Amino acid sequence: MFKNITVVAPGLLGSSIAMAARQRGLAERISIYARREESVEQLKHVDWCDHAASNLGEVCRTAELIILCAPVERIISLAKSLAPELENNPIVTDVGSVKGEIVRLCQHNLGDKGRFVGSHPMAGSEKTGMENATPDLFVERVCFVTPQETTASKATETVVAFWKALGSKVTLETPDKHDEIVAMVSHLPHIVAATLAAFLSENCPRAGSFCGDGLKDTTRIAAGDPTLWREIIVQNRSEILRSIRSFQDQLQEFSAAIANGSEYDLLQLLNDGKRFRDKL
Amino acid sequence: MFKNITVVAPGLLGSSIAMAARQRGLAERISIYARREESVEQLKHVDWCDHAASNLGEVCRTAELIILCAPVERIISLAKSLAPELENNPIVTDVGSVKGEIVRLCQHNLGDKGRFVGSHPMAGSEKTGMENATPDLFVERVCFVTPQETTASKATETVVAFWKALGSKVTLETPDKHDEIVAMVSHLPHIVAATLAAFLSENCPRAGSFCGDGLKDTTRIAAGDPTLWREIIVQNRSEILRSIRSFQDQLQEFSAAIANGSEYDLLQLLNDGKRFRDKL
Repeated sequence: MFKNITVVAPGLLGSSIAMAARQRGLAERISIYARREESVEQLKHVDWCDHAASNLGEVCRTAELIILCAPVERIISLAKSLAPELENNPIVTDVGSVKGEIVRLCQHNLGDKGRFVGSHPMAGSEKTGMENATPDLFVERVCFVTPQETTASKATETVVAFWKALGSKVTLETPDKHDEIVAMVSHLPHIVAATLAAFLSENCPRAGSFCGDGLKDTTRIAAGDPTLWREIIVQNRSEILRSIRSFQDQLQEFSAAIANGSEYDLLQLLNDGKRFRDKL
Repeated sequence: MFKNITVVAPGLLGSSIAMAARQRGLAERISIYARREESVEQLKHVDWCDHAASNLGEVCRTAELIILCAPVERIISLAKSLAPELENNPIVTDVGSVKGEIVRLCQHNLGDKGRFVGSHPMAGSEKTGMENATPDLFVERVCFVTPQETTASKATETVVAFWKALGSKVTLETPDKHDEIVAMVSHLPHIVAATLAAFLSENCPRAGSFCGDGLKDTTRIAAGDPTLWREIIVQNRSEILRSIRSFQDQLQEFSAAIANGSEYDLLQLLNDGKRFRDKL
């Protein structure tokens, strides 16, 4: 499919992409950029990497497809460093979990040196790093691909085909719509669970002695890595704030139904929730 | 342990209590009140019931311990019907999932004819009825026992000993403290999960295509029976409203930390939540 692809940074996602691309025969040559020399050294001994270096220009220059797998806050500056090194107008994508700002600024930073199409594979786990990578990480998982209006359709099609070839179920959305969706289905639930857990930690520290599986399920994701979640929340700040406000309105409606003894409204809300949950 | 105990209404909890009491040899004679003649008939053929009748006075008159296992909204009126029938000043308890009002009004209704000590075994399931009863229902489950200040300690001790003999882990709380605790550890989580599910059902009906296990866990209890939950919520209305308000304050604090970019506060809240959840 590709002659040369380059993965920038061999973390969990980057290494898994390289492994899967090799296993599925998607590229003749796979190059990987790693900042640390130990990682470069390590990569010389794996069969899913043909060339590794800590010089960004060197590993990216001849690639047709570059996948930026750095943490969200580094992707935009990587696109800036990359631009002057590129010669073949490659397609550039990323794996960041927010998209609006990243897509706009990455394309701006690349200018006419590269074609940017954002991606967000909903894969990954609490585990991180190359040592936890697996070629099956993307199989049957949703991957958002988020072209802008101005993105060349050839570039979008290539990125879509790449993720499908890795086994993902691809969903096309605009970058802003993507951010709105993940705010609602992923970030808001995390904040609600964390808020409930933080509330109980202050108001009912003995909760553990009384609670059943209900509370355990409802707060399970609050155990996620706080540093990681802080970054995600900061990046998708405005969409998250909007979804918190709508959630607060819904909770206020619930609370009013209880306060006013509106048993019909109360039943309606409980029924809406049950219908939604039963379909998941 | 007892010469005569009486269970009022052979539902899931009542039947399970009778079975467990027989299995563990806690009573020489077990009587059961059932409203419907078919149930009375059925009870004549089980070995965990020595006498069944649809006449409340007849089954309760000589009991030393009476356990009211009717739905929450019927317990108070049962205590009223019971009072004129009692001769031995029995200990009377119940299994209702809220306690404040029940305990005050039951003791008031019994007057000097019986000694009321409220109970709330945190057992039960989505299944209901005698056909799902089991003598192990209370084993290793928390059971609240909720004496008032005026309750004779002998009565409290008897009720505590009874639940321990059924295998429960007993926790003593005042009736109002009990209602505050269950509002926080059980009712609030249910309302939060239902609100999140109702919110998404309106604002992101396609959520099912994108969501992972996080959202599924966080909303799992929203699938509970809406009619049952409406009753519980109505019964514990004031404590639930209070815990919703505190939860809203906590969520507002979270939201303000995001809006103000207070990364330190944000991390603090996420850490508080994680610490609490890790301990459950």
